[in-house]
Amino acid sequence: MAEDKAILVVGAGSGTGGEIAKRFAREGYVACVARRSADKLADLVAEIEGEGGRARAFSVDASEEGSVVAAFDTIEVEVGPVAVAVYNAGGFARASITETTVATYRGMWEQSALGAFLVGREAARRMVPRGEGTILFTGASASLRGNANFAAFAAGKHAQRVTAQSMARELGPKGIHVAHVIIDGLIDVPRSRDMMADALDALGEDGALKPELIADMYWMVHQQPRAAWTFEMDLRPFKEDW
Amino acid sequence: MAEDKAILVVGAGSGTGGEIAKRFAREGYVACVARRSADKLADLVAEIEGEGGRARAFSVDASEEGSVVAAFDTIEVEVGPVAVAVYNAGGFARASITETTVATYRGMWEQSALGAFLVGREAARRMVPRGEGTILFTGASASLRGNANFAAFAAGKHAQRVTAQSMARELGPKGIHVAHVIIDGLIDVPRSRDMMADALDALGEDGALKPELIADMYWMVHQQPRAAWTFEMDLRPFKEDW
Amino acid sequence: MAEDKAILVVGAGSGTGGEIAKRFAREGYVACVARRSADKLADLVAEIEGEGGRARAFSVDASEEGSVVAAFDTIEVEVGPVAVAVYNAGGFARASITETTVATYRGMWEQSALGAFLVGREAARRMVPRGEGTILFTGASASLRGNANFAAFAAGKHAQRVTAQSMARELGPKGIHVAHVIIDGLIDVPRSRDMMADALDALGEDGALKPELIADMYWMVHQQPRAAWTFEMDLRPFKEDW
Amino acid sequence: MAEDKAILVVGAGSGTGGEIAKRFAREGYVACVARRSADKLADLVAEIEGEGGRARAFSVDASEEGSVVAAFDTIEVEVGPVAVAVYNAGGFARASITETTVATYRGMWEQSALGAFLVGREAARRMVPRGEGTILFTGASASLRGNANFAAFAAGKHAQRVTAQSMARELGPKGIHVAHVIIDGLIDVPRSRDMMADALDALGEDGALKPELIADMYWMVHQQPRAAWTFEMDLRPFKEDW
Repeated sequence: MAEDKAILVVGAGSGTGGEIAKRFAREGYVACVARRSADKLADLVAEIEGEGGRARAFSVDASEEGSVVAAFDTIEVEVGPVAVAVYNAGGFARASITETTVATYRGMWEQSALGAFLVGREAARRMVPRGEGTILFTGASASLRGNANFAAFAAGKHAQRVTAQSMARELGPKGIHVAHVIIDGLIDVPRSRDMMADALDALGEDGALKPELIADMYWMVHQQPRAAWTFEMDLRPFKEDW
Repeated sequence: MAEDKAILVVGAGSGTGGEIAKRFAREGYVACVARRSADKLADLVAEIEGEGGRARAFSVDASEEGSVVAAFDTIEVEVGPVAVAVYNAGGFARASITETTVATYRGMWEQSALGAFLVGREAARRMVPRGEGTILFTGASASLRGNANFAAFAAGKHAQRVTAQSMARELGPKGIHVAHVIIDGLIDVPRSRDMMADALDALGEDGALKPELIADMYWMVHQQPRAAWTFEMDLRPFKEDW
Repeated sequence: MAEDKAILVVGAGSGTGGEIAKRFAREGYVACVARRSADKLADLVAEIEGEGGRARAFSVDASEEGSVVAAFDTIEVEVGPVAVAVYNAGGFARASITETTVATYRGMWEQSALGAFLVGREAARRMVPRGEGTILFTGASASLRGNANFAAFAAGKHAQRVTAQSMARELGPKGIHVAHVIIDGLIDVPRSRDMMADALDALGEDGALKPELIADMYWMVHQQPRAAWTFEMDLRPFKEDW
Repeated sequence: MAEDKAILVVGAGSGTGGEIAKRFAREGYVACVARRSADKLADLVAEIEGEGGRARAFSVDASEEGSVVAAFDTIEVEVGPVAVAVYNAGGFARASITETTVATYRGMWEQSALGAFLVGREAARRMVPRGEGTILFTGASASLRGNANFAAFAAGKHAQRVTAQSMARELGPKGIHVAHVIIDGLIDVPRSRDMMADALDALGEDGALKPELIADMYWMVHQQPRAAWTFEMDLRPFKEDW
């Protein structure tokens, strides 16, 4: 096995996942960034390397067991032990219950829950024998509460959260730190800016979450000594109405 | 369309679902009972008919859209409007996160969440135009909290609960009563008796839930006037340690 | 000790508490109704007696230990065992945190929590030796969630809820049924009508809770056999936005 | 008004509160430490000064409005604006509901909730006009769940938590960061060591929370930029069974 410490970030790109990868790369981790198509990760890898860090891109379909297992195996052989696994993938859906398709309901679960389970389980399988490791999940306000038109989205997020909670209870005593971060509010990333520039502008200064601040918190949680671990914390802009 | 009022109970047999069917049949509903194989429902149908009620058995795979749609269509054509839909299916799984298979994680979600979504959605599609109807879901203590070795089971149940909650918020104002009943404790049914007779006996008198009492509560919730509806209630034996 | 079964309703008048008293009186219980000033209970007593029931009025300051103890003692000597105790008192307050006075913060706690504790404890002290009894608490949506301008109100209601929950866990195995009913929505009672007739009218038919329907649910919970007890249920009008 | 930045820590001594005071003192804040009797704070003040920090001791009865107001007034006149207020006071009680006295039930509320309200309100009154400030509350696992024998303790903690939550929703948009930290587990402080040395030893290395690690988290939360604020986070030792 290689000797460098690796972080695997599933759901990486130009937003939160990318910032998490950059943050850990600055601390010396090899940033193994993953999304469905590694082609879209070239800019992120170049950016990390431009900063003097190390990065590798992987094409991973998080809802396919073989794809997730292969990524872990490759990283552990070619890079080093996965010390940190971050599950940051997840889609979004909004529809009346009567107009929600099976594809949407299933897709939200695959992206939010099944992928989280697979990445979490594969991380746990490798970390438990080592007695250490950190597994981080990105939640949302829909992880805590359902609402009209959000059945599919909330179902996926609720399943993810309790998967993380069940893992934390089991794996904590084995030395594995599992945490769930609830992101409550719009994040100021290119994708949000493309889709709702006006809404973002209306929020004003510091009215939206900044992905680099979220990344700081993932690093902070990872750094917590085992005598004082956080399982869950929320993050929202000061102006948020919640 | 036929004119009799129907109740569809998905997940019916010799336990809770069967008692719910019998309870509503006594009140004049045509009990449309469903499980994977209708063959296993012959005794239940005979019992209901023996009491002077009416019943129909359906083979339904609740995680298959076509199967659920077909059952609703058949009932509405041959029996009458589905006034009440009950989702009482769901499996059980217990395993360390590292030993939980995709089949188990997916199966728990299909049985607890996808089936609930499909039955709920198909009921809603038919009830919304009529401005009335009741949709009832059977939850568990794992609907509220995760735990070591219960990631798969809790993930399915959490997804079911928030699907029901999202439906209730959307459909309440349209006249549809959606409720979620949390069953917390062992139920004294043949299946429990086969698997853990000693545990049941150790609980002593009234130490386990009785399916006919659960059925009474489903009937009670259905009877609530729309000026005072319950979304969620728990049921547990008085001795339960929770 | 006298032999009639008594229900004590603390926080009774022309609204929910009064309806609960009437409901149980119709079932044969002696309705012991209590509020700060028994003078205001004359109409309620007369109404219950007019229906053929039995009622007694008590002046009780629920936040004064001596007052609560005296009421229980008097009832048990002069009427009979308190088989059911209902805590339905509680005020309401809305104010910015910076403008909330100690009197308000303390008052909300005394009315929602201290009174509930005292009535619950005195009921428990008498019921535990008998191995049976029912203790019911009236909660609100503020029992579950805080909000701007509702710190004092929500603090009292949260304290009440967890007092009830702690009691339920301790007293259930001793045969005492403790339940907490969350009332979420406007109740159509004279006091609401005086204060916000327009809001009530705007809600339309069945848009507000009806106190007699709430009373039916208290009776229902009291009737649950101990093999299937509810600790918590919510009640809201079908139109409620929650 | 003086110009130094002050932190007020109510509930300071040789444990968590003292460590929080030391942590902020190292960052340049004047540590204004408070408990019922300032006499017991001499060691803490000396320790902070010995490290080159500045500290002031105050006798404060957190459940007495005048006492809390006077402390804030004195600090703002003699030291500088209270930039951070920490409410770390709170007692502990364990008793059957039937044996819980009014003094205990009231005492738990005064220590956990009324004191938190007063310190939070007085902080808010001074911070809102300045458009900035941080208010931190120390919670416990009893903030989230009741249990047999814990009615009084949990009632106080639940009231505190929802007071903090209501404040956060109101004050966040005004630039005040309100947070609630849930401490779940034994803390390795002199008081715990006196009372349950064996239990602490049995937990083994890192099996108990360390107060200096908790203090680090209070500093971290205070440092969060307003575009990504945490309201709530939990802290527990890796071995904790929760």
